[in-house]
Amino acid sequence: MSNHSQFHVHAVSPSYWKVTFENAPINLIDLDTVEQLADLVTCMEEDPDLTVVVFQSANPDFFMAHFDLLSEIERVYSTAVGPTGLLPFSDNLLRLSKVPAVTISAINGRVRGAGSEFVLNTDIRFAGTNAILGQPEVGFGAVPGGNPMGRLAELVGRGRAMEIVLGGDDFPAQLAAEYGYVNRVLPEGELDDFVDIFARRIAGFSKAGVSGAKEFVDAATAIPAGDYAAAMAAFRRTAGRPENADRVRSLFERGLQQPQGVELDLGKHVAEKF
Amino acid sequence: MSNHSQFHVHAVSPSYWKVTFENAPINLIDLDTVEQLADLVTCMEEDPDLTVVVFQSANPDFFMAHFDLLSEIERVYSTAVGPTGLLPFSDNLLRLSKVPAVTISAINGRVRGAGSEFVLNTDIRFAGTNAILGQPEVGFGAVPGGNPMGRLAELVGRGRAMEIVLGGDDFPAQLAAEYGYVNRVLPEGELDDFVDIFARRIAGFSKAGVSGAKEFVDAATAIPAGDYAAAMAAFRRTAGRPENADRVRSLFERGLQQPQGVELDLGKHVAEKF
Amino acid sequence: MSNHSQFHVHAVSPSYWKVTFENAPINLIDLDTVEQLADLVTCMEEDPDLTVVVFQSANPDFFMAHFDLLSEIERVYSTAVGPTGLLPFSDNLLRLSKVPAVTISAINGRVRGAGSEFVLNTDIRFAGTNAILGQPEVGFGAVPGGNPMGRLAELVGRGRAMEIVLGGDDFPAQLAAEYGYVNRVLPEGELDDFVDIFARRIAGFSKAGVSGAKEFVDAATAIPAGDYAAAMAAFRRTAGRPENADRVRSLFERGLQQPQGVELDLGKHVAEKF
Repeated sequence: MSNHSQFHVHAVSPSYWKVTFENAPINLIDLDTVEQLADLVTCMEEDPDLTVVVFQSANPDFFMAHFDLLSEIERVYSTAVGPTGLLPFSDNLLRLSKVPAVTISAINGRVRGAGSEFVLNTDIRFAGTNAILGQPEVGFGAVPGGNPMGRLAELVGRGRAMEIVLGGDDFPAQLAAEYGYVNRVLPEGELDDFVDIFARRIAGFSKAGVSGAKEFVDAATAIPAGDYAAAMAAFRRTAGRPENADRVRSLFERGLQQPQGVELDLGKHVAEKF
Repeated sequence: MSNHSQFHVHAVSPSYWKVTFENAPINLIDLDTVEQLADLVTCMEEDPDLTVVVFQSANPDFFMAHFDLLSEIERVYSTAVGPTGLLPFSDNLLRLSKVPAVTISAINGRVRGAGSEFVLNTDIRFAGTNAILGQPEVGFGAVPGGNPMGRLAELVGRGRAMEIVLGGDDFPAQLAAEYGYVNRVLPEGELDDFVDIFARRIAGFSKAGVSGAKEFVDAATAIPAGDYAAAMAAFRRTAGRPENADRVRSLFERGLQQPQGVELDLGKHVAEKF
Repeated sequence: MSNHSQFHVHAVSPSYWKVTFENAPINLIDLDTVEQLADLVTCMEEDPDLTVVVFQSANPDFFMAHFDLLSEIERVYSTAVGPTGLLPFSDNLLRLSKVPAVTISAINGRVRGAGSEFVLNTDIRFAGTNAILGQPEVGFGAVPGGNPMGRLAELVGRGRAMEIVLGGDDFPAQLAAEYGYVNRVLPEGELDDFVDIFARRIAGFSKAGVSGAKEFVDAATAIPAGDYAAAMAAFRRTAGRPENADRVRSLFERGLQQPQGVELDLGKHVAEKF
């Protein structure tokens, strides 16, 4: 397996991988994450036995914070496109949604922005009681680049997708489950065991059945590559505008991208006067 | 701004309008409503700063009752089509769903028939505990004309859309939230503040982000103009049939379109022997 | 009416039929069921007065168990296609979803596999507290043949459809309602009366309104015949493979297709070591 040091892959068995994401201090998604994820997805695509993959976080408070606003994002835009013809992060998401294995996010802590887009492109989302999901991009003045609009509309319906994306607020586990943003929230302390039992169950089934059935669900809910491309283009047009700068600066002054401070309640802080 | 006396527009700020609907005694939708709504939607489309619009009712018991059965509806059919190429009320609904600002219905009291179709074409529906939603048209012998079938199928799924539309019954706030007919129901007395805080939040965001993201959710859930046209044609074919007349007459005798009487529990009364 | 002895049809009135399914001991779906259902659907299509049909089970523990694994299923594959151009069982499902009358499943007990596909192609699903739904096919090594992937994706969203179909587990009534697999679960002892009142209500409405409105919901959620055909082809490719044989044999040894034993908790047993 090639290098993907932010993603620790534990092969529980040939058919079941547990992947632990760690990018201290708060699991930001940066350019290395995008590159390593591309590689990891390729491994998942090519493994003939792999039937189920569980994604979890090494950080109990942050599953994946969001895209690193200090990364040289222009490098993403100028990198060669991936196998889907999309720019790297969009390519990650679309390919992830189509790997033959079933993918499960076991969400503890905060998952926002590009992190939320990641879990939306895994097949199944189970949440711990401390999970918090959100798409704060509109609060930053930007259209979300990973097209959560498409996945959320399908999962939670137009009205709730509008609320989540345009409001840019945090959605705690219970509300996320009521809306359908996650499959369900497990009682305190039960997430890991529940997910492990569920994953072992599927890992014991024939891959032909699992992959074959997944293809049908995917086909019924697939999002055209062009929609991912259009969202990334809209993000690029809106994210770097001078009028967004003051709010972003103010959030950095209050601890953005740090373990304490505004990241704990980003949904609240992104809407504050600055 | 042109005349739309049934819709009182209060510009809380350049980016946030609060629109209060009033058409005493029970907020029926009549031909004036349709004309004024067309004008209001045009104002919303053309305002460069407007980012969020909240719709509320001046009547705590009726958000919008339903279409006025005593109006000269043939005038709607013979009026020139709107910018979408649709007849006036259908044109209202489709254009409303696509205005660049985000639209929010803060629902207190009853909203049925064409009123339900109105809120289904706003982006977000928040409900008070006393909200009651429904599509009683099938009970009157008619296919609903504003195509709630399309919006409800997307929001609540085929099974619940069939139940709501074919059963023609009332859906109280809590059940409506469980089904996804509304985003959520707020606790007693909290609706107005909750909606105001939510609206101010979005009003403080950059319009480019809000409108840009809305476009994607809309595109993922858009209903073709032809479906609105087909529903209105089906309504026209079925609504005025002689076989419906006895039931309608009986309902009028029991207080239809009056504040007391059958309007309070129309879902129940529309199915009664007559 | 022609022969369909497994389906007892009681015409409560010209517009309202109650159909009771019985195929002792556990309401398996066999080749006779498929043939009789085709006939029953034709009767439903042709009856000019029929407005609402309720399906219930004579067996309080099993609504419809699943397809009879001991039937000569090759006969299905070699039978002439139905009016939709699909093989018989797929033809049943697609035609059922489009009959002009509204169809309601009143679910008591277990309904899995092909039985779940049956209820997913009726319009409305109401459940008793003892209802248990599931698609165990993937546990047997097979892609489900009746394309529940398509209906479930529309009803419960991609994430929950993946969980239901790929996990192959049982979904008790309450969880099924939270996911949208059924419309709602009625309190203990109230299912039959609730459904009867609901059905009588619609039976009293004009058929033109009911059928006309149903057509719109159906059009908004229709599944192309090709998807049913593809799912049946995938089932045929995966269901009979030698590698599935040990698990199936082990389940038969533990009571598969018998009233007691593994059928009571098939979701659990299908994933057990064998």
